[in-house]
Amino acid sequence: MKPENVVLSEDGKSVVIIDQTRLPLHTEYLALSQPEEFYDAIHELKVRGAPAIGICAGMGLYVAAEHFGEHNEEKFLSELHNVSAFLNSSRPTAVNLKHALDRVENAAHSMRGKGTDAMLGEMRRECIAVQEEDIAMCKAISEYGLTLVKNGYGILTHCNAGPLATSCYGTGLGTLLLGKERGYTFRAYVDETRPLLQGARLTAYELDKAGIDVTLICDNMASIVMKQGKVNACFVGCDRVAANGDTANKIGTSGVAVLAKHYGIPFYVFCPSTTIDFNCRTGEDIQIEERDPGEIKTKFFREPVAPENVKCFNPAFDVTDSSLITAIITEKGICTAPYTQSLRICMKE
Amino acid sequence: MKPENVVLSEDGKSVVIIDQTRLPLHTEYLALSQPEEFYDAIHELKVRGAPAIGICAGMGLYVAAEHFGEHNEEKFLSELHNVSAFLNSSRPTAVNLKHALDRVENAAHSMRGKGTDAMLGEMRRECIAVQEEDIAMCKAISEYGLTLVKNGYGILTHCNAGPLATSCYGTGLGTLLLGKERGYTFRAYVDETRPLLQGARLTAYELDKAGIDVTLICDNMASIVMKQGKVNACFVGCDRVAANGDTANKIGTSGVAVLAKHYGIPFYVFCPSTTIDFNCRTGEDIQIEERDPGEIKTKFFREPVAPENVKCFNPAFDVTDSSLITAIITEKGICTAPYTQSLRICMKE
Repeated sequence: MKPENVVLSEDGKSVVIIDQTRLPLHTEYLALSQPEEFYDAIHELKVRGAPAIGICAGMGLYVAAEHFGEHNEEKFLSELHNVSAFLNSSRPTAVNLKHALDRVENAAHSMRGKGTDAMLGEMRRECIAVQEEDIAMCKAISEYGLTLVKNGYGILTHCNAGPLATSCYGTGLGTLLLGKERGYTFRAYVDETRPLLQGARLTAYELDKAGIDVTLICDNMASIVMKQGKVNACFVGCDRVAANGDTANKIGTSGVAVLAKHYGIPFYVFCPSTTIDFNCRTGEDIQIEERDPGEIKTKFFREPVAPENVKCFNPAFDVTDSSLITAIITEKGICTAPYTQSLRICMKE
Repeated sequence: MKPENVVLSEDGKSVVIIDQTRLPLHTEYLALSQPEEFYDAIHELKVRGAPAIGICAGMGLYVAAEHFGEHNEEKFLSELHNVSAFLNSSRPTAVNLKHALDRVENAAHSMRGKGTDAMLGEMRRECIAVQEEDIAMCKAISEYGLTLVKNGYGILTHCNAGPLATSCYGTGLGTLLLGKERGYTFRAYVDETRPLLQGARLTAYELDKAGIDVTLICDNMASIVMKQGKVNACFVGCDRVAANGDTANKIGTSGVAVLAKHYGIPFYVFCPSTTIDFNCRTGEDIQIEERDPGEIKTKFFREPVAPENVKCFNPAFDVTDSSLITAIITEKGICTAPYTQSLRICMKE
């Protein structure tokens, strides 16, 4: 599997992305070369998912520099810094964005005195490294995931933690995609994931494209498919994991975990080690973003589906108590309860 | 509270209904007088909810007869029978439809030899009785419901079991509406209820209209509002209750019940006694209707939200295990486990 969501051209003059805002109905590729185009792609969620944003921004900084036509090192670095700051302002919260931009900018600085061509060469290596490290991380997580499943498993997913959001394989979906390559047959039950429908729009699209048997369900159907014995395991990604294993992920994840526990089904969290926040002692330290009511009442719909003055509660995430989590799968190993110990031990290895 | 969804005119020449397909954005009233208009209103779900359908059809049969202009008893009864059969074909499954039509037709027969005016008078009394009995049933259920709550309660609802589906008060929403009249203050958390959004479109509308504090949530947010301590009780209606208390209701109900049990919150089923089916031993005897995938992927949306070839599982109902139900509230009393005994005892009283 190779990354398809963000692809650097051979000549370093452009990056081709899949416009995720047009999926699943329209698979449209966009070639980006100017800083404004990269900014727009990230800002307008044409590329989304924290790792994918970092990869795209890092490549964007390098591609922009290829177009500078500037051979004075200091002027080159100064211009580079401006572009980096500009790209960093495209999304407010994704840590990967700043991290990748800094890595690529630092790569240029490391070649000071060797000329701008050497700087460009090092930047190219660095932005490719950001992507390759993500591929390796996703693949390692997926390998660990494969040790937890059997051929023929029914797997329920919530939201989207697939290749579009990362490089390839993804985290939560990686086991399914790597398993498919290895000849496993899975049945995926995909929660549509209201209000933004990432399950319907992205997960169903990615798994179907890979030839995996997909059944789309509404979020409130998770209970019946579990009760009917169709689900052998639940797979989710995560947005932040506290030191004790409490996990913030897309809204609805905690409900899936409660159902899984009730029906005796393993519930697995797929987690790049960078997502573990040892500064959060428990889930109570994780702040939950509340979003616009319009996402529930109007977005996607032909006309509003509820009276205008009715208020909505629209938390983007919820926290799943670590007692509901069977295992947390990182690229460094599989952690089980008690997580306060297992996460620290795993990260130190 | 008086019925507003189905109202018989003083002169018996028409029935005014709220067109439920236009809610919540548009409150449009339709005056029905011809059999074809009643058929269309029921068939096109302009009036929906098994009790409301029965009430509307019974009144429709009487109103149609008022327009016959026929004074020969046998011709009158023959024409009446044709209209009754025609209206009965408007929806396939609602038992209340046939039941109400039979009652109104039998009322005419009971006046044989006394002239068609006497027949019309008896039919009018009978179709009004159908509605009044429903009002009494809803009110009795709601009175029992009020014994289970305290002022200030947060109550989570799923789907719609309110006045629009019945006569007034409703079953699942009756406690909230009757309580509001008595000066109770409730906070209602309303599941939007995918895929058909009865919670957003109808429950939020009905509770908001009654001046109750309403917060609309996506189905997958039930877990977080329960975890945050906002919910003191869950209220749902039902489509069929088995002899052992297993309850079929709108898809997603069983998930709410599992969450309620996990978070230690009472889960109440509001159930007209006619909905208890002693011929079903357990929930396994209840067949679950599967509906069109288009309801999940395309209905309500500006464009399809999932790839065309991705299959969907779209069960309209699920069965909540009786072990998850705190009490079943009927118009004859409140039943608790073991339901096999309590439901039979309650119905015999």
